[in-house]
Amino acid sequence: MTDETRRNDGRSRTRIVLDVDTGIDDTLALAYLLASPEADLLGVIGVYGNVTAETAVRNNRDVLRLFGRPDVPVMHGMPRPLWADCFEVDEGCARFHGANGLGNVDPAECMGDAVSAGADAGGSGETVDAAPGEVAGGMPASGHRTLTGSAEPVLPGEGVHTFAARGRVKSVGGYRAEGEAELEEVVAAERAVRRAETEGVKFIVDAVRRYGREVTILATGPLTDVAAAIEAAPDIVDSLRVVMMGGALTQEGNCYDLVCETNIIQDPEAANRVFRSGADVTMIGLDVTHQCLLTRADAQTWRDTGTARGRFLADMVEFYINANEDADPMFLAGSPLHDPLAAAVALDPTLVTCFDINMMVETRTGDGHGFRGRAIGDPTRLRSPRKTAHVALGVDAGRFVPQFRDRVVSICR
Amino acid sequence: MTDETRRNDGRSRTRIVLDVDTGIDDTLALAYLLASPEADLLGVIGVYGNVTAETAVRNNRDVLRLFGRPDVPVMHGMPRPLWADCFEVDEGCARFHGANGLGNVDPAECMGDAVSAGADAGGSGETVDAAPGEVAGGMPASGHRTLTGSAEPVLPGEGVHTFAARGRVKSVGGYRAEGEAELEEVVAAERAVRRAETEGVKFIVDAVRRYGREVTILATGPLTDVAAAIEAAPDIVDSLRVVMMGGALTQEGNCYDLVCETNIIQDPEAANRVFRSGADVTMIGLDVTHQCLLTRADAQTWRDTGTARGRFLADMVEFYINANEDADPMFLAGSPLHDPLAAAVALDPTLVTCFDINMMVETRTGDGHGFRGRAIGDPTRLRSPRKTAHVALGVDAGRFVPQFRDRVVSICR
Repeated sequence: MTDETRRNDGRSRTRIVLDVDTGIDDTLALAYLLASPEADLLGVIGVYGNVTAETAVRNNRDVLRLFGRPDVPVMHGMPRPLWADCFEVDEGCARFHGANGLGNVDPAECMGDAVSAGADAGGSGETVDAAPGEVAGGMPASGHRTLTGSAEPVLPGEGVHTFAARGRVKSVGGYRAEGEAELEEVVAAERAVRRAETEGVKFIVDAVRRYGREVTILATGPLTDVAAAIEAAPDIVDSLRVVMMGGALTQEGNCYDLVCETNIIQDPEAANRVFRSGADVTMIGLDVTHQCLLTRADAQTWRDTGTARGRFLADMVEFYINANEDADPMFLAGSPLHDPLAAAVALDPTLVTCFDINMMVETRTGDGHGFRGRAIGDPTRLRSPRKTAHVALGVDAGRFVPQFRDRVVSICR
Repeated sequence: MTDETRRNDGRSRTRIVLDVDTGIDDTLALAYLLASPEADLLGVIGVYGNVTAETAVRNNRDVLRLFGRPDVPVMHGMPRPLWADCFEVDEGCARFHGANGLGNVDPAECMGDAVSAGADAGGSGETVDAAPGEVAGGMPASGHRTLTGSAEPVLPGEGVHTFAARGRVKSVGGYRAEGEAELEEVVAAERAVRRAETEGVKFIVDAVRRYGREVTILATGPLTDVAAAIEAAPDIVDSLRVVMMGGALTQEGNCYDLVCETNIIQDPEAANRVFRSGADVTMIGLDVTHQCLLTRADAQTWRDTGTARGRFLADMVEFYINANEDADPMFLAGSPLHDPLAAAVALDPTLVTCFDINMMVETRTGDGHGFRGRAIGDPTRLRSPRKTAHVALGVDAGRFVPQFRDRVVSICR
């Protein structure tokens, strides 16, 4: 059991690649990073999870514009987990994050102009026309290729047959849907996978190859992109530093079974691959995020700024607080700051106390196999002196929550 | 996250009441206590679990005689969990501990005399004739009543009807048996419950009332007796100090589901009651016991003493090592010292590093209820500054294992 050592000693800013399934607390994490002078945000990858990857990308773009940072590169991450051929958001996510991931609040409306429509015509979730400069702008590594709508890869017929042969599995929020997915969904997902591999996954690989441990991959959704990066470039593992929101080691999970946590259940294989890769992983799970609660009073401080940004955040968070209160009496005291805490720890590891342990994720359920989606210690590495995961079990909530609230206030003005 | 503070500063010996379901590692724990000059063993209670309570009592008596300590009081604990009307040992326990709980090694044979037969005629598991002096001898509290065979309480007809009406549930190793239990098993169990309440449970209550935090209840089996003591005397909670072997917080469990641990699954309601009572509980779970492994070479040092005691322990442990190796390749490196570690921590808390947390045990399985038998953080007390459980997550195995081996050698001679 050791405290995490401070990571940004000796340099003023911490390089971050944010990989995010942009729901409400994800948006708050992004806002926090924008409000933190010590954060050097290299790029933001939108992955499936709380929303589809397309919606995550659109939300990232909208939020960055709303907060005056359209210069930050926005990329597409994976549209579905490793284990499925396509993905659909489950109703639980919609309940907590709204149909659009932002509590059904439209950032464009808050701005009083057409920010959203301008960024993503119609908001259909099917545009892939990221401008090359926008995608690669903040990432000094050269050779980062950006797809345009007209350059989408064509899915080879062979690939389609392969998918068809293995049953075209659809994930609904991490759970296998009954029946087969429609072939057209699978084909669309496969196209999006290619794009993600070229954009988001490649961005992670390039960033780690360039900066090593001087860049933190901050993953607040499923770990599919990080696992894909490791798969594509195993050489990055030794210098890969991940701070992730997900899992629950000493507390109950937040899936219906109370064993699993929602980010991990989306893609247990990916999380297991990341944990077992040897990469340095700091896990910010429900153990600590359930101790960091945002109240209506906090949100009111944002609204009190009287700005469009403050109104947007306050409206969005009100949806989140209502949903949490409805879901569990535990959250009458406030709503958990899951992703913002992970962002804050990426910048300041002293906010948490970590237990060093080698982790894994069980990928099968049943006698002798455990419980699919459960993040737990890896028995095969229990006695290994080298521990690759640092699981936050203690948190200085009294320091973090006000700091979070106040920093966000500062960029609402 | 705090280190446990040393408990026996300022006094040379630590008072212990051992509550034990005497299988093999339980026997090793008892031997370790007998070998530890700082242990003041007030009494040993035999509870169901690895074996029946009757067998546990017999084993306790035999082992105490073999090691020259017949003066230590031996008592009956509960014969079944709170949730069932009677109990049967499951085959898993027999596989790890042998049919007699001692790896099918007979301590009497090792002694070359009739120790066992003398202590418990026929070894039928039905004798209740503990001599009064033997039971209460080491416990200075007065008023401790001991039953003799002829004074067994008569089960009122009403009680029988009550049990019959609710279906006469039988636990087989913590799992509900199919079909109803036989009425005669239920009646026998009910008699044994009365005896346990008068002997073992009362011994716990009296010891805590007399010594408060200056006595440690060391429970290495199901927590049924401790829960019954709290139920019978809620006033003891504030000064009740328990060191228990059981649970697995950051590692997989050792039941087939890999979620639960065998001591907790035997009686989840009892464990939950103890965790939530407010009593001070140090949990020695698989998190640490799976790091403390006993090898054949260790056992050989006992055999090399050339004594009956050394031969008994070495033969017994060989059975245990074989069973563990057969069960899991993880144990090819050695067999876990579950109960001995708990005993050692009761004497020297600095052997482990604990995570302070409020614990509970889930008692139902299914969506929204968790997983019956899972020991996990209590969400309702997550943010409470007062933590009543201390879960060992780190252990100095390099110090403990040789110390354990060598102390036990010292009493083989």
